[in-house]
Amino acid sequence: MTLKVYLSGEIHTSWREEIMAGAEGLDVTFDAPVTDHAASDDCGVAILGPEQSKFWHDHKGAKLNAIRTRTAIGAADVVVVRFGDKYKQWNAAFDAGYASALGKALIVLHGPDHSHALKEVDAAALAVAEEPRQVVEILRYVLTGRLPG
Amino acid sequence: MTLKVYLSGEIHTSWREEIMAGAEGLDVTFDAPVTDHAASDDCGVAILGPEQSKFWHDHKGAKLNAIRTRTAIGAADVVVVRFGDKYKQWNAAFDAGYASALGKALIVLHGPDHSHALKEVDAAALAVAEEPRQVVEILRYVLTGRLPG
Amino acid sequence: MTLKVYLSGEIHTSWREEIMAGAEGLDVTFDAPVTDHAASDDCGVAILGPEQSKFWHDHKGAKLNAIRTRTAIGAADVVVVRFGDKYKQWNAAFDAGYASALGKALIVLHGPDHSHALKEVDAAALAVAEEPRQVVEILRYVLTGRLPG
Amino acid sequence: MTLKVYLSGEIHTSWREEIMAGAEGLDVTFDAPVTDHAASDDCGVAILGPEQSKFWHDHKGAKLNAIRTRTAIGAADVVVVRFGDKYKQWNAAFDAGYASALGKALIVLHGPDHSHALKEVDAAALAVAEEPRQVVEILRYVLTGRLPG
Amino acid sequence: MTLKVYLSGEIHTSWREEIMAGAEGLDVTFDAPVTDHAASDDCGVAILGPEQSKFWHDHKGAKLNAIRTRTAIGAADVVVVRFGDKYKQWNAAFDAGYASALGKALIVLHGPDHSHALKEVDAAALAVAEEPRQVVEILRYVLTGRLPG
Amino acid sequence: MTLKVYLSGEIHTSWREEIMAGAEGLDVTFDAPVTDHAASDDCGVAILGPEQSKFWHDHKGAKLNAIRTRTAIGAADVVVVRFGDKYKQWNAAFDAGYASALGKALIVLHGPDHSHALKEVDAAALAVAEEPRQVVEILRYVLTGRLPG
Amino acid sequence: MTLKVYLSGEIHTSWREEIMAGAEGLDVTFDAPVTDHAASDDCGVAILGPEQSKFWHDHKGAKLNAIRTRTAIGAADVVVVRFGDKYKQWNAAFDAGYASALGKALIVLHGPDHSHALKEVDAAALAVAEEPRQVVEILRYVLTGRLPG
Amino acid sequence: MTLKVYLSGEIHTSWREEIMAGAEGLDVTFDAPVTDHAASDDCGVAILGPEQSKFWHDHKGAKLNAIRTRTAIGAADVVVVRFGDKYKQWNAAFDAGYASALGKALIVLHGPDHSHALKEVDAAALAVAEEPRQVVEILRYVLTGRLPG
Repeated sequence: MTLKVYLSGEIHTSWREEIMAGAEGLDVTFDAPVTDHAASDDCGVAILGPEQSKFWHDHKGAKLNAIRTRTAIGAADVVVVRFGDKYKQWNAAFDAGYASALGKALIVLHGPDHSHALKEVDAAALAVAEEPRQVVEILRYVLTGRLPG
Repeated sequence: MTLKVYLSGEIHTSWREEIMAGAEGLDVTFDAPVTDHAASDDCGVAILGPEQSKFWHDHKGAKLNAIRTRTAIGAADVVVVRFGDKYKQWNAAFDAGYASALGKALIVLHGPDHSHALKEVDAAALAVAEEPRQVVEILRYVLTGRLPG
Repeated sequence: MTLKVYLSGEIHTSWREEIMAGAEGLDVTFDAPVTDHAASDDCGVAILGPEQSKFWHDHKGAKLNAIRTRTAIGAADVVVVRFGDKYKQWNAAFDAGYASALGKALIVLHGPDHSHALKEVDAAALAVAEEPRQVVEILRYVLTGRLPG
Repeated sequence: MTLKVYLSGEIHTSWREEIMAGAEGLDVTFDAPVTDHAASDDCGVAILGPEQSKFWHDHKGAKLNAIRTRTAIGAADVVVVRFGDKYKQWNAAFDAGYASALGKALIVLHGPDHSHALKEVDAAALAVAEEPRQVVEILRYVLTGRLPG
Repeated sequence: MTLKVYLSGEIHTSWREEIMAGAEGLDVTFDAPVTDHAASDDCGVAILGPEQSKFWHDHKGAKLNAIRTRTAIGAADVVVVRFGDKYKQWNAAFDAGYASALGKALIVLHGPDHSHALKEVDAAALAVAEEPRQVVEILRYVLTGRLPG
Repeated sequence: MTLKVYLSGEIHTSWREEIMAGAEGLDVTFDAPVTDHAASDDCGVAILGPEQSKFWHDHKGAKLNAIRTRTAIGAADVVVVRFGDKYKQWNAAFDAGYASALGKALIVLHGPDHSHALKEVDAAALAVAEEPRQVVEILRYVLTGRLPG
Repeated sequence: MTLKVYLSGEIHTSWREEIMAGAEGLDVTFDAPVTDHAASDDCGVAILGPEQSKFWHDHKGAKLNAIRTRTAIGAADVVVVRFGDKYKQWNAAFDAGYASALGKALIVLHGPDHSHALKEVDAAALAVAEEPRQVVEILRYVLTGRLPG
Repeated sequence: MTLKVYLSGEIHTSWREEIMAGAEGLDVTFDAPVTDHAASDDCGVAILGPEQSKFWHDHKGAKLNAIRTRTAIGAADVVVVRFGDKYKQWNAAFDAGYASALGKALIVLHGPDHSHALKEVDAAALAVAEEPRQVVEILRYVLTGRLPG
């Protein structure tokens, strides 16, 4: 069994690296959005030309990023969505809804303080974790049947 | 032509009523989530029995609400998602992603200050409006071809 | 909002009647399998001719019943599956899996003593109820937003 | 031609090993659920933290297991579901219904004493076998056209 | 419960009329191909202009008829396919395959002399009947639970 | 049998009115894009606010129109696409491709001088007509089996 | 570009071998049903045990063969269906309908004497060929753009 | 991450070669229609025999080409559609609509003079580029996160 995992959401901490390092040796491949914040914000105008309006500046960039994110979510078996402490992170919740409607196995990763605000997202998930380490343990268990400890 | 419209998102202002009143006479039907905040939060335990843990209290309620929201979004032609000024509103963004993956016509409704944070959601939409009145005008135009003014 | 509800599973108690009576006045329609046990067992040979082998006797009947059950589950918004105290009831669990793969809103109805054996079925459900009354309350809440009491 | 086969159901006898050994040399890959009963029961709390209620203990585990089973059934060409002599085995029947709704080729494996209780499941199958050896012979025939003996 | 039934296949006997007459009073609607053989053969050139080649004469007609047959099969719950004694009737078998891939409930109607030649078609069906009367009885049973006699 | 027909393409002649008048008395409903050229071009900015760039002016309008066209094509049984003598009409060809991928019955309507340029579109159609009258005759034949004359 | 081609239909001449030999060097893989007529007829009882009734003897075999044919058609890009001079060949027409409903590229291969009887099947095809050599030429053209001669 | 890209549309300039050369070293594979204009026009009659009518000559060729184009679009993650300065190019717009309905990531490539005529096509795209170089930059950004310059 092989798993294709997409790591969506928060891009300001090293949670993706922790999961990828922890999953070394498992039969799993990872995809993720572009996590270079500046590149992600400006890709549209950098490639397709400048916009006077901030709205269309953002719009062109968001659509380029969608080429990557929708393709990757569509190809994934498992979608992990991480919510951090800052920002609105509506794109993370959007990805969770998108993945859910496609029937992907959804794992949500967030601290307990967000539980009430994320209850609808969590209700669509097959696992709600607090730590990247738990996501690694889930992947190991799903792929090998081995539990931690 | 008839349109089935689902009104998702913010439940603290009267935007739904404004849209429904404005659309009177058009060949359109509206659905919405349960907008009684207390009922929506407690429905799970009120019907299926109490939980000691707040997480499962929320979880049972969120799932009951999902019976309504997923059925209604699945049946809708157009999904309008409103983002207000307060709270995380991750369920609204989740609904937008869910509707988008199902290929529903998406209309996003929010103030200009949220444009950057909502750029991924807006990029998936067929219209981004700021006022409920504009949603009414969209529905009227789509159904009758008549423009405002 | 209208709901089409399919009532699958146990056919030896009056739970369907209780739900239908309780839901009177709500905008809901109900379907169910043929609940006349003898007719359900013998319909294949009664209509299409006798079989010497019990296996094919059963097989012809099960397929005729599938015309009804698969059509009705396919058309339903909500599928309620009731597990009673007796028999293997594998057809009920089969219906639950079938409904789940189609993305139907699943409500499972069973006593607490079956919780461990039904954990995989419950994990796919949006509600796990113990009493027909609770199913009525769910339907009322989903359709009207009103809670019991 | 290559076949991806998922072996669902009973985990207390060596039927999976018999099939995999018998199919050696054929162009077939096998997946299965976690068959370590204790790990399968406790995986949720072992990874995601303890629960006071047995229901949620089971629930968290069943959902983690669903990450594996749904992904594997979704990827399979053929789903074999084995019903043994003991327990309710509702998860096996659930998998059969789930696979059937996805249009997977379904093979059911059980003793003749279960035929009446499994008639709805058998009616959805492309083969009903009694012995693991027969499943091997089916796979060999489907892949190579060669019959036993 | 309502059933939409499509009556495909042989157009030289009155089997459709027998079924429709027998089903009077049941909550069922019937569709069928154009059964006027000459109109069905010549519709393409009669409407869209003559062809010198017989192949394209037939081709234009077959495509016009497909507007009706594919739309009706797509909308049906149950597809009945009747094989008679004469002609190749490949369009009937084509319709059966088409309906089967769409997951429609398939009922095949033919005499016992065709059983071997139709074994692949029958294997995809939920019922194999010999007489139109039996189709009526199936529809009555599926809709009302009542058996004949 | 009822048909839902979407009339896509050229908006400068009265072909839609001819078809609708000719089809009077048939069990058919028609939808169409907004055919008021000025309204169709300016709807985006008229409702959602002005744009400095012509590109985004057009873009906002095209997306509003897509709410209507995609919903209507998605609901249609038959999509008629008319190509006239002037303009690029790429939206007409886009609609034809969109309808074709959804499996809709496609009727293309154009003069013989466009046959070579439209050969890929015609190849996806179930009928290629030159006159609105022929579309009426097709609808009448499909619905009633009656041929002209 | 790689093509997966399924070769359905007539099993009494060497047309499959001709196509496979002619396509040597092209980036194409072939699948086919079991073409050993006796094995194909008897596989059900040979593996799953004897039947007294010829109908169920055939039925069990047809279902085993369906494991192979439906899996292979589902995985194919192109389905070639060959109709020969003898027998009813309803399974070939069934496969054509099945493939057509799944949106597979369909190539029909038959002599001109069958054109009228196969007009509905041909109308669903992207090519109608008379000789295996033409199918090879189609595959070469589709894969490489090179025409014969 | 790997991308499968289909390059549809204009066949008279070297834009495909520019993109493929520019994308060297990226994890991307390209498909395209047959770009030999004469072969593409005559393939039908060259392989399947001559036609007296130009319409059917074109028709047979367009269908053979559809075997390639529909298979390749169906397998693609990204579809790039290029509109040039000459000809009607309705097949390009058809491909764009087809790809859009399948949910493919659509990139449209055309000069600014075509913006108004292509507004409906652009509205369905995730990027609108003017130069092949920009498409290369999009692919590099999507695959690696690196921006030009």
